[in-house]
Amino acid sequence: MDRRSRTPLSPIRFLERSAGVWRDRVAIGFEGTSTTYERLFERVERVAAGLRAAGVEEGDRVATLLPNVPAMLELHFAVPGAGAVLVPMNTRLSATEHAYILGHSGATCVVADREMRDHLDTASTHLARPPRIVYVGDSSEYERLATDSGRLPLVTPDEDALLSINYTSGTTGKPKGAMYTHRGAYLQALGVIAEAGLDTSSAYLWSLPMFHCNGWAYTWAVTAMGARHECLGGFNAAEVWRLLKDSGITHLCAAPTVLTMLAEAPEAVPLKRPVRVFVGGSPPSPSLLARARELRLRITHLYGLTETYGPLAVCAWRPSWEEDSPAEQARLQARQGVGTIVTEPIRVVDSDMRDIAADGVSIGEIVMRGNNVTSGYYRDPVATERAFSGGWFHSGDLAVMHPDGYVELRDRLKDIIISGGENISTIEVEQALVAHAAVIEAAVIGVADERWGEVPKAFVTVRDGSTVDLTELLDFVGQRLARFKVPKEIEFVTELPKTATGKVQKFVLRAAALGTPESQP
Amino acid sequence: MDRRSRTPLSPIRFLERSAGVWRDRVAIGFEGTSTTYERLFERVERVAAGLRAAGVEEGDRVATLLPNVPAMLELHFAVPGAGAVLVPMNTRLSATEHAYILGHSGATCVVADREMRDHLDTASTHLARPPRIVYVGDSSEYERLATDSGRLPLVTPDEDALLSINYTSGTTGKPKGAMYTHRGAYLQALGVIAEAGLDTSSAYLWSLPMFHCNGWAYTWAVTAMGARHECLGGFNAAEVWRLLKDSGITHLCAAPTVLTMLAEAPEAVPLKRPVRVFVGGSPPSPSLLARARELRLRITHLYGLTETYGPLAVCAWRPSWEEDSPAEQARLQARQGVGTIVTEPIRVVDSDMRDIAADGVSIGEIVMRGNNVTSGYYRDPVATERAFSGGWFHSGDLAVMHPDGYVELRDRLKDIIISGGENISTIEVEQALVAHAAVIEAAVIGVADERWGEVPKAFVTVRDGSTVDLTELLDFVGQRLARFKVPKEIEFVTELPKTATGKVQKFVLRAAALGTPESQP
Repeated sequence: MDRRSRTPLSPIRFLERSAGVWRDRVAIGFEGTSTTYERLFERVERVAAGLRAAGVEEGDRVATLLPNVPAMLELHFAVPGAGAVLVPMNTRLSATEHAYILGHSGATCVVADREMRDHLDTASTHLARPPRIVYVGDSSEYERLATDSGRLPLVTPDEDALLSINYTSGTTGKPKGAMYTHRGAYLQALGVIAEAGLDTSSAYLWSLPMFHCNGWAYTWAVTAMGARHECLGGFNAAEVWRLLKDSGITHLCAAPTVLTMLAEAPEAVPLKRPVRVFVGGSPPSPSLLARARELRLRITHLYGLTETYGPLAVCAWRPSWEEDSPAEQARLQARQGVGTIVTEPIRVVDSDMRDIAADGVSIGEIVMRGNNVTSGYYRDPVATERAFSGGWFHSGDLAVMHPDGYVELRDRLKDIIISGGENISTIEVEQALVAHAAVIEAAVIGVADERWGEVPKAFVTVRDGSTVDLTELLDFVGQRLARFKVPKEIEFVTELPKTATGKVQKFVLRAAALGTPESQP
Repeated sequence: MDRRSRTPLSPIRFLERSAGVWRDRVAIGFEGTSTTYERLFERVERVAAGLRAAGVEEGDRVATLLPNVPAMLELHFAVPGAGAVLVPMNTRLSATEHAYILGHSGATCVVADREMRDHLDTASTHLARPPRIVYVGDSSEYERLATDSGRLPLVTPDEDALLSINYTSGTTGKPKGAMYTHRGAYLQALGVIAEAGLDTSSAYLWSLPMFHCNGWAYTWAVTAMGARHECLGGFNAAEVWRLLKDSGITHLCAAPTVLTMLAEAPEAVPLKRPVRVFVGGSPPSPSLLARARELRLRITHLYGLTETYGPLAVCAWRPSWEEDSPAEQARLQARQGVGTIVTEPIRVVDSDMRDIAADGVSIGEIVMRGNNVTSGYYRDPVATERAFSGGWFHSGDLAVMHPDGYVELRDRLKDIIISGGENISTIEVEQALVAHAAVIEAAVIGVADERWGEVPKAFVTVRDGSTVDLTELLDFVGQRLARFKVPKEIEFVTELPKTATGKVQKFVLRAAALGTPESQP
């Protein structure tokens, strides 16, 4: 077949197009100022030139340590546009973790927030060859870099070339660098546009950090449509509500934790126009869904991993669900769902890679492949081979496949509890707990038991002003779960230990449980 | 770069996904009946199996001669799903033209409407090896083919493999077969979804023939979103209005001629909910735009060619246009516009492939390239090389580039009139004529003139019940055009000669003008 008309797929093209077509539209709103697409494009070409002048060569890795400021968006085009590879680091990690990622990726340059200066100084002491650090802010080095070196025409890369390396949160072991290609990012962005219904009049609020899977590809998708990025220097529920009420926001993404903060904020009032909210990281609880509905936040639940360019599955709303009770709807919306339109069918398989029965009961591991799945871990062929055994990426997530083809998570492979020979999904037990109106969050782990091998133990946080006692909660859960799944212990805590990405650190809870085996609520 | 996660782009994937996710949603509405996505998928697998059983092998060409019936949509998946190549023929061509296309493509099978029987018998007499003909209809051979051979799991082709060959209308010379790949079709469909704002609740009315560039990729795009295809056995303005009023239609596509028929139909009334209408083939006239607005048909003007998977440019509405007068808006909306989000930048070049100035005045030829441009003409390397000279596809369309980056057609390369050394755009003269309320359509050609070399001559059709005399019309046009552009002759006709695709056949007008040089209105 003649490949005459084959041009490479790259999200850089989206910016180039919007810089022409939507030149006078607002690309970025930030702290009351705005930047047009024409200006954004100029900035990107200038930053690309500045990076080159600062010694960044094609193929180099350029890391970021930035909140959702305009520079972070610029770098999503300027770094690949200079032929380099973006390494967006989570600002909430420790200096040791940053040092590890900088060392492992071999980043030659870091663009960072000034507030990270002490932090980066510490990280640099761990590195044999510390990267050049460019700080962002008024009259900063970044601004000089964006003005002093003219403009660089953005490169047109091979579509299979590396665009970004996104490190996993590493709840266990070292973070691994999931590699994203230009092709994968381009297709994922087109998938986001279709699933989120983005159009030119959309305004996207940057509540989700761009360092999470390149902001779930909204960095590129919003740009492609010539829509508005509303950037945020930091997350502040009051400020977010102000923007939701006054700034024409149409879309935002968030982890349930962040959404809970929004829903519980004193500023929360039902919006005049509904806003589409995409939630991922863990399933939204029934009470959160109910509250969001009151506020006119139209929730869609997504599922994905750092290794899958962020969400690659969507709990697509089925018309037949309209007739279900709110409780049943909430249960259905908590499913991880189905692959998006650019996603290969998601499978749930047994240890021999055979598809488990789609009966809503049989449990297997979720495996994926396709253009929006990482091409592997950077500089880690062993971990890559292991993750891709059988040719599919192994998520480590255990799930059932419902008869309607929707996937529902049961547990992390390493979190499942085996009690008296029965599998207990910690997620199922957690969902039963958070169904109680007084409970905000719950985490369940397995603890050793002489008779059953393992039994479930729960840690719960309770809503301010609410009270619930142990007996009442056990009774509540006992009406929803088989007896063997009901926690043998429930511990009321003020906060759950979490990773920098907001995931509950069950290993911390397990260590705590081991250290104080007699602890009773 | 590791290509582990590279899976082929193909629109077949869209149907497979919708068959799972949207299994119980209506895929096709047709004459009051409906078909779910699950059922459509089963039908497609059955037709694919039936084609194989009928002797169709991988790589074979399967032609169609069908209106917008469900079978035509099925074949858009079943033919490539069987590993074969689709050749959708225009039902309005002559038997000789069909014979040429069947012979040139080497189609081994034709799926056809029963009403084409006599016609195909004639065509077959021209062919050394007539293809097998499968007729569609109740208890037809097609239905047997769809039931007797079980189901064929659809093939996963290489993304650069040939999916469809779409023959040009061939106003001059023989039709040429523009080749479409799976990759191109997949990306074009994603572009349609983004530009048209298709979502799962959309309902697309099949007023545009699917044999035109595979229905401008809506065959695949609507399917991808799990939206509804409303099929039509034939075009009937009354029936279309009934569906627009009662059937929840959200989108349709049409040539201006068809849209004019709709807008002038006695059934036309302002719709309760606006419908998005995509118009291509030629620019909509100001009076048509005004009438469409009254009817709540929200028009977007598109531009493309058989060689570009249908429309690859869109006259994207600019917010600043809101403040312009209706007349100015109509003028702006008649532009061909800018490439869609999956399109490489469109260029307007001189004969040395240098970009002309973006001044709205300088004229050059539109050239394109990229994934939604044909990979070449089937079995015609000479025409392919000529069309792609300089590495870009040459449209044969002359245009200006406006300072805002929007392209506007001035003429077909072969239609431009050179009068006293000045270029006269026949399109510009035609637009000046149709701006008159009494004029429906106008076509302008150059006729020989001793003094000026060439001068413009116009053919116009007049609205029923309206009257306009020559002097009045010349006066009207004289206020809008430079003196040398005003037609020296205007002929009032009842109908303009058109190709099967609805394009005015200027060569017929030129022949007529030569045959009757003294004709005066």
